[in-house]
Amino acid sequence: MPPTITAFANSPDRGKGQARDMRVRWALEEVGQTYDVRLVSFAAMKEPAHLALHPFGQIPTYEDGDLALFESGAIVLHIAERRAGLLPTEPNARARAITWMFAALSTLEPPIVELGMAMLFERDKGWYAERLPMLQDRVRVRLGELSRRLGDADWLDRAFSAGDLMMVTVLRRLNASGLLDAYPDIAAYVARGEARPAFRRAFDAQLAVFKAAPAS
Amino acid sequence: MPPTITAFANSPDRGKGQARDMRVRWALEEVGQTYDVRLVSFAAMKEPAHLALHPFGQIPTYEDGDLALFESGAIVLHIAERRAGLLPTEPNARARAITWMFAALSTLEPPIVELGMAMLFERDKGWYAERLPMLQDRVRVRLGELSRRLGDADWLDRAFSAGDLMMVTVLRRLNASGLLDAYPDIAAYVARGEARPAFRRAFDAQLAVFKAAPAS
Repeated sequence: MPPTITAFANSPDRGKGQARDMRVRWALEEVGQTYDVRLVSFAAMKEPAHLALHPFGQIPTYEDGDLALFESGAIVLHIAERRAGLLPTEPNARARAITWMFAALSTLEPPIVELGMAMLFERDKGWYAERLPMLQDRVRVRLGELSRRLGDADWLDRAFSAGDLMMVTVLRRLNASGLLDAYPDIAAYVARGEARPAFRRAFDAQLAVFKAAPAS
Repeated sequence: MPPTITAFANSPDRGKGQARDMRVRWALEEVGQTYDVRLVSFAAMKEPAHLALHPFGQIPTYEDGDLALFESGAIVLHIAERRAGLLPTEPNARARAITWMFAALSTLEPPIVELGMAMLFERDKGWYAERLPMLQDRVRVRLGELSRRLGDADWLDRAFSAGDLMMVTVLRRLNASGLLDAYPDIAAYVARGEARPAFRRAFDAQLAVFKAAPAS
């Protein structure tokens, strides 16, 4: 039995691959692991059956036999630990790749999500125009630091790893913000990730769910 | 040679143990690993020597021989993988403990930090009174979900693990907010973490740095 993951029945991003199941799909494709998908509605995500799997009522989850996990970072790490393709075997390089996973989730994603939430939910507020540049600047600080570290390398630490997978998916959340225009090296890095065959397969799979979904 | 971590030379929390070196100190104490500390000023954190260790110019970092890591989550996981005491040996329980580490950092910490940042930096803004309840509600949603999952258990998944260590340090950031008053089970969970001898040793070590520091 292949593992089963959960994803949105009606993706709020309309199939742009920005929901967090994309990270898990991409990781599974990179390591060549087939998987099943169970689609969950927004209402069902807050029902006891799903909350037993995911205490915070979100997607994705991951079920494999007796094991049930949540949190895209933990799921990607679990996949990367079990099959070759996402983590170096040399112990120090492996630890550094995992460090980039945490950097993507703990240092880059929070200000990016905060900016995205404000753009979604506070656009009509009187304070929006004054707060927006502050939120953008917090993201730009991180992008500048990331750009300096990346330099002219293809990936964050030599070979492509789960750290790059996580960083690219986090940076893709900026697609609609225009902020990446000022960082052509980071935009090229994201494009390199998106060009990987495993990314394309994962992207097409999540897009197919959106296209097949009834209009909500 | 024991590993060396970095910490603030002048802790902005005045020794309350809310800087992220606390997580690493606590983890090292739990597994019985001695360590050295190099103190870094705010100016030095943005200098090339420190940026070579930590591309985002923060603390903590971790150096052990040829290995250099950053991100408290990655460092705690690395410590937990190398020495007994922070992760179960049974593979599924180990994966679940790591899931709680990611849940603390990706699901709980961002709204908690966002609330804290607003309380620090936007208190004098005209919008503060209107935004504050929204930010508090986002944290309360997560606390409610965490409380339901915790139930009457001592720890998140049977035995104390790196997942609890990370969750307790994230929840401690709410100490000054008063929000935990409405969740006595979570407050008791945090207190259980704080009562561990390894926590006390780590707390005292970071407090000693603050007490020895010249007034900044």
